[in-house]
Amino acid sequence: MRALFLGNMQVYLDNSATTRPRQQAVKAALEAMESSYGNPSTLYRLGLDAEKIVKAARKTVAASLGALPEEIFFTSGGTESNNTAVFGAWESRKKQGKRVITTAVEHPSVLNCFEELKRRGADVVVLPVGRDGSLDLDVFRAALTEDTVLVSVMHVNNETGAIFPVREIGRIIKEFAAQKGIAKPLLHTDCVQSYGKLQFKAADLGADLISVSAHKVHGLKGTGALYIKKGVHIQPFMLGGGQESGFRSGTENVPGIAAFGAAAGLLRISDFAAREHLKKRLTEEIPDIRINSPEDGCPSVLNVSFLGCRAEVLLHMLEQDGIYVSTGSACSSKDKGSRVLRAMGLSAEEIEGAVRFSFCADNTVEEADYVVERLKAHTEGQRRLRSAFRRK
Amino acid sequence: MRALFLGNMQVYLDNSATTRPRQQAVKAALEAMESSYGNPSTLYRLGLDAEKIVKAARKTVAASLGALPEEIFFTSGGTESNNTAVFGAWESRKKQGKRVITTAVEHPSVLNCFEELKRRGADVVVLPVGRDGSLDLDVFRAALTEDTVLVSVMHVNNETGAIFPVREIGRIIKEFAAQKGIAKPLLHTDCVQSYGKLQFKAADLGADLISVSAHKVHGLKGTGALYIKKGVHIQPFMLGGGQESGFRSGTENVPGIAAFGAAAGLLRISDFAAREHLKKRLTEEIPDIRINSPEDGCPSVLNVSFLGCRAEVLLHMLEQDGIYVSTGSACSSKDKGSRVLRAMGLSAEEIEGAVRFSFCADNTVEEADYVVERLKAHTEGQRRLRSAFRRK
Repeated sequence: MRALFLGNMQVYLDNSATTRPRQQAVKAALEAMESSYGNPSTLYRLGLDAEKIVKAARKTVAASLGALPEEIFFTSGGTESNNTAVFGAWESRKKQGKRVITTAVEHPSVLNCFEELKRRGADVVVLPVGRDGSLDLDVFRAALTEDTVLVSVMHVNNETGAIFPVREIGRIIKEFAAQKGIAKPLLHTDCVQSYGKLQFKAADLGADLISVSAHKVHGLKGTGALYIKKGVHIQPFMLGGGQESGFRSGTENVPGIAAFGAAAGLLRISDFAAREHLKKRLTEEIPDIRINSPEDGCPSVLNVSFLGCRAEVLLHMLEQDGIYVSTGSACSSKDKGSRVLRAMGLSAEEIEGAVRFSFCADNTVEEADYVVERLKAHTEGQRRLRSAFRRK
Repeated sequence: MRALFLGNMQVYLDNSATTRPRQQAVKAALEAMESSYGNPSTLYRLGLDAEKIVKAARKTVAASLGALPEEIFFTSGGTESNNTAVFGAWESRKKQGKRVITTAVEHPSVLNCFEELKRRGADVVVLPVGRDGSLDLDVFRAALTEDTVLVSVMHVNNETGAIFPVREIGRIIKEFAAQKGIAKPLLHTDCVQSYGKLQFKAADLGADLISVSAHKVHGLKGTGALYIKKGVHIQPFMLGGGQESGFRSGTENVPGIAAFGAAAGLLRISDFAAREHLKKRLTEEIPDIRINSPEDGCPSVLNVSFLGCRAEVLLHMLEQDGIYVSTGSACSSKDKGSRVLRAMGLSAEEIEGAVRFSFCADNTVEEADYVVERLKAHTEGQRRLRSAFRRK
């Protein structure tokens, strides 16, 4: 992930937005394009070759989630996985109850689906989060009613790295349903940010539905998967020719799926030493910052507010140094300010100065050192300039 | 498209199922994966590079349809385009009327959406087709009511190549609406099979919504587009971060879109001499066949019933010769018999013996000659064997 860039290093610290595809993933996609271009649904060899690629990838992706191959359904990405989970769960359960529960800091592909559920007649509860981005389980318990049919809580927040207590929520739901003698509400968790970063198995999370994306783990954009626990049935989202065991129609994106399989097979959980190093040095060496990521958050994300600075200006200055970071998430970067940081109750100054550094297993301590040095210069410069303007 | 195959030619005649990606398309995808892997929504150069690729591809795809770039929305393929069009049109118009009209021979990704509309309270009319697969405009006129909000008629049928009178339907709808003083029902047409095969411009078709797919025109699986006529607004299908001008959320499949742009830029309308040659020789030299494709059909498809033969057996025999064809469509190949041929009223024997040959611009007359020679041998052999069995 390192290269020369105008005489400097190139440091990619926006891995929560997207990642560089692994060479093996690119190679797998290329082979699928050139040699196995048949339609997996056709009966002859060229089609069977493509079908075999999809089958092998399904096995690898399933293994990476500790799931069964028949629990994995390929989609066009995390957004489609989330849409499929939320709409599919609602449509299949809406006769049993009207309440659906989520949090204020979900990805827009979950939150906007819940907005639509409201229009479809659901009783939508959006749980608030604390100033550290965490969810209070008592708040969740209070929202859970016998009328609840779906709970969607992300595993790791994309802007702060806050880890949500999905396991505990799963347990609470299960106990609640058993106690009340009702069908267990479906539990969906968006694991787009935790997949490949935290060690977990689908079954341990206690979720019925899990969304993952290939391009966040060095696969390609345009591919993702939805895990549906064996025995759980939800209404399909994309209707048509009946691919993916009849659940997700549309000719399979064979190159993307091949690349996903390759990337999933190469996943390794990192200790993210570069992130720890960056956090330590920033805290010690740059004054007036606020670490917005919780202490016990996912070690791939570090969200920091540089008070008195504008994050967007820092982003462009760092870009000149070959360093890629983001303000908020890619999905909200063209909006004004971060919805997640606002939900956490941060001040305007804190939100304005918030930079997200997001790591992959390949980032190094040397890269972190370089980022600190450049940030020292840029924050000092910007703060001096702004206070000079203010004095005028 | 030719290569040595066990000492023989390799003849790919299943281009309606999927096509071999063009080298330029593969190259464009590869560059997007390796050099422009940023997220198009991010603010720095790597993201802008990706955004530029998407923008350029949108322009090329728009030009290939005679449309404006802002009328093109990238999707994960033809199936998603069809789902988006049908559901989006219904959800945005259902308050104005309940009738929706389609034909019995649409692709499953349209027909199954109409089935779902029935569950959502629509008054669904499925128009029958004639024995030559054609649609009677008087039948359509009779179905059109003031309560109609959506008409979805494919441009070219994927199994027979029958061309549907989309332009005339557009005119009839327009006149009807003007005469009755009602809002014009939305017209959607699935152009997955006609795109790149027939010369047409979006505006000339008179449709509000047009679906196309990249992998049917030598692009990649996993990418398609929906044309939405300027001024027409339908409800989005995939909700989330607001990519594609807020209409289609999800991180853009940059490699797939890059490949689509490359493929769209290379489209050329062929005279399909190979198909004409094949049709002529089959008709003259093989007895007891039925041409199921209409005389005035799309010249990329030739559907032929070899009476007294089982198409599936022919398919596997041809495969041994390096010739790839299909029975029905790829989407129905794992079902029993062709829904389209059944809708046309063909006999069981005619359906059992039906083979689809589908062409791209690269197929040659020499390939057609080779196919005829092999088919002569296989049909004779199979017919002799079956009549011998029958005599026993």
